[in-house]
Amino acid sequence: MPSVDLNADMGESFGPWRMGNDAGLLDIVTSANIACGFHAGDPDVMAATMRLAQDRGVGIGAHPGFADLQGFGRRRMAVSTGELGNLIAYQLGAAQGMARAMGSEIRHLKLHGALSNMASEDAGIARACFEAALRVAPGITVMVLAATAMEQAARDLGCAWAGEIFADRAYEDDATLVARGSPGAVLTDPDRAAGRILQMLREGAIISRNGRRIPTRIDTICLHGDGESALPMAQGLRRALEAAGVRIARF
Amino acid sequence: MPSVDLNADMGESFGPWRMGNDAGLLDIVTSANIACGFHAGDPDVMAATMRLAQDRGVGIGAHPGFADLQGFGRRRMAVSTGELGNLIAYQLGAAQGMARAMGSEIRHLKLHGALSNMASEDAGIARACFEAALRVAPGITVMVLAATAMEQAARDLGCAWAGEIFADRAYEDDATLVARGSPGAVLTDPDRAAGRILQMLREGAIISRNGRRIPTRIDTICLHGDGESALPMAQGLRRALEAAGVRIARF
Amino acid sequence: MPSVDLNADMGESFGPWRMGNDAGLLDIVTSANIACGFHAGDPDVMAATMRLAQDRGVGIGAHPGFADLQGFGRRRMAVSTGELGNLIAYQLGAAQGMARAMGSEIRHLKLHGALSNMASEDAGIARACFEAALRVAPGITVMVLAATAMEQAARDLGCAWAGEIFADRAYEDDATLVARGSPGAVLTDPDRAAGRILQMLREGAIISRNGRRIPTRIDTICLHGDGESALPMAQGLRRALEAAGVRIARF
Amino acid sequence: MPSVDLNADMGESFGPWRMGNDAGLLDIVTSANIACGFHAGDPDVMAATMRLAQDRGVGIGAHPGFADLQGFGRRRMAVSTGELGNLIAYQLGAAQGMARAMGSEIRHLKLHGALSNMASEDAGIARACFEAALRVAPGITVMVLAATAMEQAARDLGCAWAGEIFADRAYEDDATLVARGSPGAVLTDPDRAAGRILQMLREGAIISRNGRRIPTRIDTICLHGDGESALPMAQGLRRALEAAGVRIARF
Repeated sequence: MPSVDLNADMGESFGPWRMGNDAGLLDIVTSANIACGFHAGDPDVMAATMRLAQDRGVGIGAHPGFADLQGFGRRRMAVSTGELGNLIAYQLGAAQGMARAMGSEIRHLKLHGALSNMASEDAGIARACFEAALRVAPGITVMVLAATAMEQAARDLGCAWAGEIFADRAYEDDATLVARGSPGAVLTDPDRAAGRILQMLREGAIISRNGRRIPTRIDTICLHGDGESALPMAQGLRRALEAAGVRIARF
Repeated sequence: MPSVDLNADMGESFGPWRMGNDAGLLDIVTSANIACGFHAGDPDVMAATMRLAQDRGVGIGAHPGFADLQGFGRRRMAVSTGELGNLIAYQLGAAQGMARAMGSEIRHLKLHGALSNMASEDAGIARACFEAALRVAPGITVMVLAATAMEQAARDLGCAWAGEIFADRAYEDDATLVARGSPGAVLTDPDRAAGRILQMLREGAIISRNGRRIPTRIDTICLHGDGESALPMAQGLRRALEAAGVRIARF
Repeated sequence: MPSVDLNADMGESFGPWRMGNDAGLLDIVTSANIACGFHAGDPDVMAATMRLAQDRGVGIGAHPGFADLQGFGRRRMAVSTGELGNLIAYQLGAAQGMARAMGSEIRHLKLHGALSNMASEDAGIARACFEAALRVAPGITVMVLAATAMEQAARDLGCAWAGEIFADRAYEDDATLVARGSPGAVLTDPDRAAGRILQMLREGAIISRNGRRIPTRIDTICLHGDGESALPMAQGLRRALEAAGVRIARF
Repeated sequence: MPSVDLNADMGESFGPWRMGNDAGLLDIVTSANIACGFHAGDPDVMAATMRLAQDRGVGIGAHPGFADLQGFGRRRMAVSTGELGNLIAYQLGAAQGMARAMGSEIRHLKLHGALSNMASEDAGIARACFEAALRVAPGITVMVLAATAMEQAARDLGCAWAGEIFADRAYEDDATLVARGSPGAVLTDPDRAAGRILQMLREGAIISRNGRRIPTRIDTICLHGDGESALPMAQGLRRALEAAGVRIARF
């Protein structure tokens, strides 16, 4: 059995507002994607979250997004590739600064929200973001949504990358996610989710809801901490993977 | 005659709004203090300004301030020392990221506006800022307002620092600036300003408007680019210093 | 027994972030102080909160604060009285616009956070805020911290005002609040809090923790909805006041 | 000859940053579209600009845009119609509050930037914005880009509206603007611009660069104040219109 990384978005609180269950998730995941202050997070939240991650030996990543706090970076914005590069360089640099201030480092980069959606559809957007990240941090690993334009951009750049799939989302035949409203779009049973993930790991492919195989490298699985059932789901999935002999480790 | 650095704040445009005359100043100064996106500047402005500075061989510094864009970082805010440290680490890191993205680096740090005023009066505030900067960038030079609590904090930390005086502002006997409203507070004649600076450089002391000497190290002189007469003043001062045999060079 | 109004701050969510228990509080209070988008709240949160308040017949008030989202308007800022007036006019106008859009209206104004603290100490600041509010909404009632400079400013202006005390905070002999850290600063027992409030209502005076009486008009009592025990406290207090024959009604 | 209104966007400074030549434009136009603090402007800038407009008898309008200060409201954002309504109600209310505070009032509404572009293409977006504005201010006049989906939305709503054309931009056959890059897209000669405008006013139609007539009501002409040649162009146009017997007056 291959080993696999488990990742989750965190550090998404802002000022007095709390979001998510970072402490709970940090006992489960091996990589933390930390918001960089544009769509969520602020310097104090970033510092506190990085410290928690560092204490538990969880790999720290930068999770940049659009400068749209109210919209949580989930609203698409028309931004040029030049602006995208600066957006990434700024947020990644800020995250590096904060990590360095506590004797840690940024190991990976994962795009957030609408920026991630856009980069998964458009290799030019993905490339602009990743190139900027690599200029700032030549050795960084970029997380890509497996089998999307992001993966293509990373392969073209020849950089270190980690292919990511979602633990709790069904896939269409073209490797995009089934829309949230559709029946079966979101998996809620840890055992069923784990079974599906195990099969994908064994076959080295995304398996769509119609059973289609889309071969791709699977290095990391995205978990969520929001909502009442999210943490038990994440815990259940990790246990099921370990029980099946999968080694859980940072990429 | 000693050599001296000339510095100016720049990169203070934001989005569609222009401020200052960065291109003009970059022909005169040897160090550029570049706003980091909190009180002024944005990732695109930072990138463009750093590129200009790099092309002219001007040393690039980070110029962090309070997160108060409307107030341009000039309104005092009650912020804890922990928050100050994170504020500095974030902005310095962001500046480093952007500089690295273009093959350059951040050489120095200078505090902006109300944050600078507060740090010049309170060594605890200065120390919190400088310690954070040094954790992010151990080799960085911190610019301090000469003969203030900032200088004390830098001496206590044993870090690299550059003592700064203003080319165009009169000093009180305690090394603080004469309030802007007062007669003679602002010097507008390049030759008179240069004469005063030369005397200070020779004596290694700030000379107050009453003629009092406050011994201090003078490594850099702050120039301004705003207003119609600012650029001719800066040019005139540089020429007068060079004519007197002062070597103008980065610290 | 006099009648009294019960008020609480609400609409303090922002974008994707939730804060407080507005729905729960709206079953208890008779006046809602709704954040106006500077220190908390956004147009969508304001609209949703106003609709809830309108449905329950709760009076809607504007709760403006400093433009400091990350600091939740709790950090003091050095702002001129002219700027304060514009800050209030803008936020009150925005709240009026949103209330009018749903066929409702803004009945009162209450200052938030650091702005409230500053206005309670400095009648000039209070007056600048209240004058601006009255120019925007001549018939508005301003809530004042009873027996502070705010009350003085409202009396000087001759406007409609409501004197406010806190249900759960102990008072010093000068009518300021006992600092949060001090023992006994925060009351947590609904019956004890109700007993104290009843005594103040009967005597028409704030009663300090040392038993000193500070005569003042008491028109409204501030409740809180944050934290696990806040809502039961608010419910218990309302029940105890009603059991003692106090009529709970909008001012 | 019909009478026509001349309008211009203004109040687009922010904090310490200046933009445009509001004082110059206010001697030429009869209606001022004042930014509302989201894409440009802040409470202090709004107050100062409204006061200038009031002093010169220029009609004051609200000019709301997306909450994208760095992008100056020119980047398209994916926002729901419910959110759009709240965005408009908030900004229009704020503008009304500030106008009322100085004894004035808001007479019209004009959408800004990307929001305007989107509303000119999609009557649903235009309708959501205008409906919200009319709930806040039932008697307000909405400015619409003549012969676009905005005009359709205003006609459907049966509200007061003013059809707007641009003094200095060429039109395509479908009443959209010729893209800025194309030759002849921007007119710079006041006399040629005036001649074209006069012809459009006489015929009651937009005249495309190919000579096609698109019949529409023309109530107001948009002028600009940015750039060196903008103000002379605006002055020249007004003089030419007056010389031709057109009465310049607020709609």
